[in-house]
Amino acid sequence: MNHNQTINPGFQPLKTIEWVGDAAGVCRIVDQTVLPVELRYLDVADLATMWEAIKVLRIRGAPAIGIAAAFGLYLAARKSTALTYTQFRTDLAAAADYLSTSRPTAVNLFWAIDRIQTLIASLSDAPIESIAEQMRLCAMQMIDEDNRVCRAIGLHGQELIANDSTWLTHCNAGGLATAQWGTALAPFYIAAELGRKVHVFADETRPLLQGARITAFELQRAGIPVTLITDSMAATVMAQGRVQGVIVGTDRVAANGDFANKIGTLGVAVLAKEFGLPVYVAAPISSIDPTLSHGGLIPIEERHSREITHGFGRQTAPDYVSVYNPAFDVTPAKYVTAFITERGIIRPPFHKGLAAVFAQP
Amino acid sequence: MNHNQTINPGFQPLKTIEWVGDAAGVCRIVDQTVLPVELRYLDVADLATMWEAIKVLRIRGAPAIGIAAAFGLYLAARKSTALTYTQFRTDLAAAADYLSTSRPTAVNLFWAIDRIQTLIASLSDAPIESIAEQMRLCAMQMIDEDNRVCRAIGLHGQELIANDSTWLTHCNAGGLATAQWGTALAPFYIAAELGRKVHVFADETRPLLQGARITAFELQRAGIPVTLITDSMAATVMAQGRVQGVIVGTDRVAANGDFANKIGTLGVAVLAKEFGLPVYVAAPISSIDPTLSHGGLIPIEERHSREITHGFGRQTAPDYVSVYNPAFDVTPAKYVTAFITERGIIRPPFHKGLAAVFAQP
Repeated sequence: MNHNQTINPGFQPLKTIEWVGDAAGVCRIVDQTVLPVELRYLDVADLATMWEAIKVLRIRGAPAIGIAAAFGLYLAARKSTALTYTQFRTDLAAAADYLSTSRPTAVNLFWAIDRIQTLIASLSDAPIESIAEQMRLCAMQMIDEDNRVCRAIGLHGQELIANDSTWLTHCNAGGLATAQWGTALAPFYIAAELGRKVHVFADETRPLLQGARITAFELQRAGIPVTLITDSMAATVMAQGRVQGVIVGTDRVAANGDFANKIGTLGVAVLAKEFGLPVYVAAPISSIDPTLSHGGLIPIEERHSREITHGFGRQTAPDYVSVYNPAFDVTPAKYVTAFITERGIIRPPFHKGLAAVFAQP
Repeated sequence: MNHNQTINPGFQPLKTIEWVGDAAGVCRIVDQTVLPVELRYLDVADLATMWEAIKVLRIRGAPAIGIAAAFGLYLAARKSTALTYTQFRTDLAAAADYLSTSRPTAVNLFWAIDRIQTLIASLSDAPIESIAEQMRLCAMQMIDEDNRVCRAIGLHGQELIANDSTWLTHCNAGGLATAQWGTALAPFYIAAELGRKVHVFADETRPLLQGARITAFELQRAGIPVTLITDSMAATVMAQGRVQGVIVGTDRVAANGDFANKIGTLGVAVLAKEFGLPVYVAAPISSIDPTLSHGGLIPIEERHSREITHGFGRQTAPDYVSVYNPAFDVTPAKYVTAFITERGIIRPPFHKGLAAVFAQP
């Protein structure tokens, strides 16, 4: 198909984070803590507000957190009263330390902080106002880069998605986890932009319900037909022939194609194999970790039992019950039909394909 | 093994429903609407209270509902001011009609009402007080019968359960769905009675959380180690070798061994096959329906979307989102290792084995 064909050029998923106005403007984010009941924006004008927004998950998703961190540092730069470069750099180092405490396990937070600090280090001869402006432009460039990666994944995904087809997804690897287009949901957004019909079944994704709260919300808002199910209904949906395949995101891909994603992904992938359906994994190159030979080496976070026993503000299990609550699972490569990266689709043998795409300049 | 060996004779699961006192006593039930936060009993002394208890699921589970209906009619009989058999029978027919409205889709409700009405019809020459007492004895006999069936399933299950083994179950086919011993949980209770060690992983079972609210509660109370997981974690638990197999209950078994059970059972069964684990289905003979040649003929109830979108007293999905909410799924016979009935274990070919056990006198 012709990827330049744009039938529905006005189509736009929600912007998770954007700069509004000129240099004197604000960073506007979708406040995800009130979703799906309300779509509320928060205009962030200082570092402390951005710290809080990251901390309490008003903004979440690895790429989106990175961009938020960059804007947070720019907002700090604007408030800096430093008269010298040295003082400015000290102020910004303090701001970076503070920001690091918002979500200490978020890799992209540190990646973005490092990138901004490297930028500052490279501008020691520039006027302070100009450094600040360069920081703002860097943050805006991160949005552009993220959009390019996500849209490329979405475009490559069109090869896999027939017109008028229905897909199952798990958790939220959507626009609201990135700047705008998402990874696993990008093929659906691009399909909508191209005027193609798609329908998505969204697993609610216990325990934290990202599928119900976020995926269902953003697809519905984009006008893409979405049907919400509990995780336990995926097998029936497949057995009844209601979906033609599975598309999910990933947190990390090992060199052999094993991948980690939100808990429940392994079950979905096994079921898809049994019912003869393809499993596509939307994987930005940044999620490929060639240092891990297989998925068993990916560390899996275990989270608090209350997410299961008191998940919705109400106690739904007995006091003191033993709980097992892994946040992610690892799906062996044998259940993956293909990875969709911004550099193209990778089919088995994954070891070769992933290494090749990773090594591309 | 010797099924008469009783190492832990004091062991008793909770009684879901029992008659307390002599003929002037009350019917005591566990009020399941306040579980798992509180264990509260309700003493039921009249038909209207029993109607309400069935209606709002203070008592639930097919066998338990049948027994509750029988006691409800007895309580109505005790309040009847009829001086003649004809008047008494008219009073009780009105009571039966009223009781039928409590849960109109519960097959066991009608089965129990019919049984009591047949009893009344057979006693046209008896004094009214004596008829009422016969009704009470009939209801108590239903408890005995249920206990015998469930305990027999539990005893036969011992052949399948190694000492010190761990099992996954889905939903609640436990003591609280029957008079006391349950079907899928009976093998664990009998194992505990025999002093054997078992450990159970309980799927929480969205949308209505019977696993979290009831299975985890009743196993914990019985001192049987139980670990609660979300439905989406079953695959990981199996992949990590944490369980040796699956035991579930069933609502209906077709002649070929396909069976219906709570939504999510199909997924668990497919995963078990993939990970090389046995799937045992606890099936009282009363759940076998030889008139259905295969599972595709079992009608599947679809329930209200709010169970998914507002499942915990809080909105967790966007307004007006499309939802698919089947209450049950059908697992093809090829995923079943064996059925555990009160008359023994049935292995493939199921068509023959189920017909034989059903035909036994």
